[in-house]
Amino acid sequence: MERPIKHIGLLTSGGDAPGMNAAIRAVVCACEHYNISVTGIKAGYQGLINGWFTSLDSHSLIHSLCRGGTLLKSARCQAFRTQEGRAQAWQNLQQSGIDALVVIGGDGSLTGAALLEQEYPVAVIGIPATIDNDIFGTDACIGYDTATNTVVEAIDKIHDTAASHNRLFFIEVMGRNSGFIALNAGIAAGCSAILVPEHYQPVDDIIERFASCDMAGDAGIVIVAEGHQNGGIAELASITARRLPDFDIRVSILGHIQRGGSPSCADRVLAGRLGVYAIEQLRRGESGTMVALQHQLVCSLPLHDVIQQQPALQTEQLRVSRILAM
Amino acid sequence: MERPIKHIGLLTSGGDAPGMNAAIRAVVCACEHYNISVTGIKAGYQGLINGWFTSLDSHSLIHSLCRGGTLLKSARCQAFRTQEGRAQAWQNLQQSGIDALVVIGGDGSLTGAALLEQEYPVAVIGIPATIDNDIFGTDACIGYDTATNTVVEAIDKIHDTAASHNRLFFIEVMGRNSGFIALNAGIAAGCSAILVPEHYQPVDDIIERFASCDMAGDAGIVIVAEGHQNGGIAELASITARRLPDFDIRVSILGHIQRGGSPSCADRVLAGRLGVYAIEQLRRGESGTMVALQHQLVCSLPLHDVIQQQPALQTEQLRVSRILAM
Amino acid sequence: MERPIKHIGLLTSGGDAPGMNAAIRAVVCACEHYNISVTGIKAGYQGLINGWFTSLDSHSLIHSLCRGGTLLKSARCQAFRTQEGRAQAWQNLQQSGIDALVVIGGDGSLTGAALLEQEYPVAVIGIPATIDNDIFGTDACIGYDTATNTVVEAIDKIHDTAASHNRLFFIEVMGRNSGFIALNAGIAAGCSAILVPEHYQPVDDIIERFASCDMAGDAGIVIVAEGHQNGGIAELASITARRLPDFDIRVSILGHIQRGGSPSCADRVLAGRLGVYAIEQLRRGESGTMVALQHQLVCSLPLHDVIQQQPALQTEQLRVSRILAM
Amino acid sequence: MERPIKHIGLLTSGGDAPGMNAAIRAVVCACEHYNISVTGIKAGYQGLINGWFTSLDSHSLIHSLCRGGTLLKSARCQAFRTQEGRAQAWQNLQQSGIDALVVIGGDGSLTGAALLEQEYPVAVIGIPATIDNDIFGTDACIGYDTATNTVVEAIDKIHDTAASHNRLFFIEVMGRNSGFIALNAGIAAGCSAILVPEHYQPVDDIIERFASCDMAGDAGIVIVAEGHQNGGIAELASITARRLPDFDIRVSILGHIQRGGSPSCADRVLAGRLGVYAIEQLRRGESGTMVALQHQLVCSLPLHDVIQQQPALQTEQLRVSRILAM
Repeated sequence: MERPIKHIGLLTSGGDAPGMNAAIRAVVCACEHYNISVTGIKAGYQGLINGWFTSLDSHSLIHSLCRGGTLLKSARCQAFRTQEGRAQAWQNLQQSGIDALVVIGGDGSLTGAALLEQEYPVAVIGIPATIDNDIFGTDACIGYDTATNTVVEAIDKIHDTAASHNRLFFIEVMGRNSGFIALNAGIAAGCSAILVPEHYQPVDDIIERFASCDMAGDAGIVIVAEGHQNGGIAELASITARRLPDFDIRVSILGHIQRGGSPSCADRVLAGRLGVYAIEQLRRGESGTMVALQHQLVCSLPLHDVIQQQPALQTEQLRVSRILAM
Repeated sequence: MERPIKHIGLLTSGGDAPGMNAAIRAVVCACEHYNISVTGIKAGYQGLINGWFTSLDSHSLIHSLCRGGTLLKSARCQAFRTQEGRAQAWQNLQQSGIDALVVIGGDGSLTGAALLEQEYPVAVIGIPATIDNDIFGTDACIGYDTATNTVVEAIDKIHDTAASHNRLFFIEVMGRNSGFIALNAGIAAGCSAILVPEHYQPVDDIIERFASCDMAGDAGIVIVAEGHQNGGIAELASITARRLPDFDIRVSILGHIQRGGSPSCADRVLAGRLGVYAIEQLRRGESGTMVALQHQLVCSLPLHDVIQQQPALQTEQLRVSRILAM
Repeated sequence: MERPIKHIGLLTSGGDAPGMNAAIRAVVCACEHYNISVTGIKAGYQGLINGWFTSLDSHSLIHSLCRGGTLLKSARCQAFRTQEGRAQAWQNLQQSGIDALVVIGGDGSLTGAALLEQEYPVAVIGIPATIDNDIFGTDACIGYDTATNTVVEAIDKIHDTAASHNRLFFIEVMGRNSGFIALNAGIAAGCSAILVPEHYQPVDDIIERFASCDMAGDAGIVIVAEGHQNGGIAELASITARRLPDFDIRVSILGHIQRGGSPSCADRVLAGRLGVYAIEQLRRGESGTMVALQHQLVCSLPLHDVIQQQPALQTEQLRVSRILAM
Repeated sequence: MERPIKHIGLLTSGGDAPGMNAAIRAVVCACEHYNISVTGIKAGYQGLINGWFTSLDSHSLIHSLCRGGTLLKSARCQAFRTQEGRAQAWQNLQQSGIDALVVIGGDGSLTGAALLEQEYPVAVIGIPATIDNDIFGTDACIGYDTATNTVVEAIDKIHDTAASHNRLFFIEVMGRNSGFIALNAGIAAGCSAILVPEHYQPVDDIIERFASCDMAGDAGIVIVAEGHQNGGIAELASITARRLPDFDIRVSILGHIQRGGSPSCADRVLAGRLGVYAIEQLRRGESGTMVALQHQLVCSLPLHDVIQQQPALQTEQLRVSRILAM
């Protein structure tokens, strides 16, 4: 029997990711298709607590498909971690007649979603969106594919100048405690070394490798995940500089350009599929789950399983990265 | 027991696809890693028959990572379909001491690879690369992801001008008999209708949908796979124009821009993984197979199974496309 | 003495061009800066006749800076060419208390602006915006720089695939009767031949050049302005194919992707400068002029001089193009 | 009377800039056109002193047209600042029979060129190439247009995430002591404030402006030229953070991505025109000059005038930037 969902609330939370707007549009289109009302909640859980509600028009949303960021805005919210905050949130949902909440965001956002669903009689479903790709249970998170393309394009540019000057660059990329961006962009951009949080490499090993190779003929690029275990990137570069005085070494922190930009085709399609499936699962009476992509198929799994595990890098990809770094 | 592969030949064949250069580099790096000689064969099977052999230097290949096309050049070759052609190819391989052949290409190229392997005692392995994504047994072909991004970027541009003039565009995209590009790019770009070869939609249905909607406020884009069953795109547009005289209708054939461009991160990573795995499987004594990606993992499967089946569009994605086309 | 302009109307007309939104924003920001009211007029002169007026908010316009097309929409309008149409337009301007009109558009749009200014006591100023760059009196038109970048990126992509197959491509680009896009993009993309309307080259000359060169080693690209004098591009290609049977020849019509896309830095800066200057000149009491860029400086000149002349290609650039096509 | 130039040497020097490869190709094509031999000199003046000479093939150069950096590599060279260094350089030129030198680079590189020309009987001509655009006497330097596009694209991406979180970003861009990149990219990207070395703005003024505006509704971006006079960007941000505790402030240093990337159409055309003109002026017997673009026309002017002056920002553009920052 299908649960008679009549009115959903929709928010984006945590760090923004390209494709969030595509997910918003997909949720709104699916709601229209199934005759469900939809209310946008601005600035994530903060807006849920403060009652920053807004209407969403599927027609105008097409112009946001190609935009990064989130038109509903996002925020990190301390208050929602408290019982009082969630109580206020629940009250606002009740008052607006919202009987289901769709949360688009990362790990922390899904944890909040799980708590709300546990404590109050509201259906909650999560859609994984984070450039870090660090959510368990889905083959891909919305925004990750775009971020890796942004990183590869940036490194291609830096490679132009590095090769013109035979320089060694240390480039820091995002990813929090995960090495997905660094590993994949590092393979794609032909980096000479890849430092990820999941696998510690002593600096000595990296330096030794460079010392033994002939840099006279070309450039080198070391991609460093922000969560790596070798200290700050500046320190890493200066240790290397002391040990390899003949190398011309530079540091680049790619920073927030990694969050923005027009979402890739894959991210928009993922957002479209997960957004529609979230509404379809809510109609089937499901709650407390996250929609996901597994083996190219949409599926859903319990939020509690999702938030208590971390996805792991594939050892095969790590091996490949070392072979290609030759 | 590992087969003592000592010298491989490498060629790209059929339509070129972005990421072929990344696959070439991966094969060469893996060969260096495993102490295998590698000979490049120019212009596909034609070069194999004509003996257009060349050396490949892993060091210089890094500059090709970010380039579309194939530095080994490609061609379609009638002669290789004949027994005489393949006999000549085999003779050239023998003379050069090549004991295994790696073929990077699409369906037709893999068919040729299977024939050669059947007829002569040479190890052969295929790597799937085609923007059409129409190879059975792999979740993705090299070049497809880049092509969909190119198409989405092109439609985003056309959408700018379409929206400024409230126009209805018919846009033809590549894909031969497959609708992968059209379906995925169509979802991503928010197209109003998607015509794929796999699912016939009478023109009347499409026109009826437009007739009932209010075009005064916005633009519409119909994405049409080249293999669709509604006749030429120009005819389609002119039928629509006759039936909807108030609409300002335009046609655009995206053409060969879809083949080129810097490969996406996903295509380069896929190329890197499959290129390395191809060499590793040859070393394990495998032959007559294609390396592939299934469920995010590299694997291999018999060429004969691959070339006798066609991958199918997911019905879930077709359903999603209709909901998002609202 | 400054004319007391209190309320301006703003419209975009003719073919849309990237940077029109940046010009709209600049006009609105300048109006706010100088305490002038501003009314947006939708769909060009059609909206002026039909009274499709709308308010414009400078705050929200920042999100349009990076978008192609025009948020005010555009149209070509037959009615405005009639006395009745312009009379209706003037009546609408009067009723809304608009005492000056800013017209963003190309040659035809500026001609309409000149007529209105001549017939009715309303101040009118033009801002040149067209990808064709065919407006006399300004070093650059808004949208042209972006369009040339779009064309060069497209040809770079096609070059990837052309070089992989040793093909000869005929690529048609926009520009109406002007060769600016073809000449500049052709130089930038390293084209083998450039056909522009301003300089007729017999097909025989082009074919002879290709016949004498060795195509076996590489690709060739002929860029053809849509207004060239050698017949349709398909005919051109088929004549060449008959005469050079060994060449693998393809045709690509770039089409409407050339109109859209995020405007380049140069186009946005040009739009910003001209938009502000238009308002400043209206405040100085000027009317019947077009703002322009000459020798890197903003200036203005009579609309009548502008619309009766055509800018010419530089012979130096034509000579350079032939040297670089070697 | 034309000077019988028979053999030129060609080098790129100083910081690399997108379009240097296009300039190299143009010089080589012009040399072939006029039957002049050409020798490439690697790594700038260092290679001139060390005799790192190489041949250049016009045919293969077409593949470098779309690449950033310089295939001749570049370097900054202390030795060339000494008499001994230049004496060695001259000796190498003599030995190779090179009777003219073409130097592609920035201010420092042109200063070196002027010195060599003064001291030894070798013809020398300069081509201005630097992303900083800080060379007197030319309307544009090769690489500058591309760099501004790269910066604007990066800020567009950051704007996506800034707007999603209502953040205030301080973004540092290159330009040494010049504000060209910051001013133009700042106008184009709709920045809220622009800090350039040429015009000191007290931090208090900037902070006051932000304090008075309502940030609740949107994001703000301050673009800061690396040579600005307000201390490090981190310090600037932290002062602002102390004074505006309610603002969520972030810092981003764009870094070396600004140097690379595929050159824009305008940069490639500029490189093509200046490269050809340099050879034509050498043939006319000219020496000790820099080729340049003035008022859309190619021209040349004495190196000594060029290296003793600095180009200035236009006050009109500064005024426009403040109006658009509203």
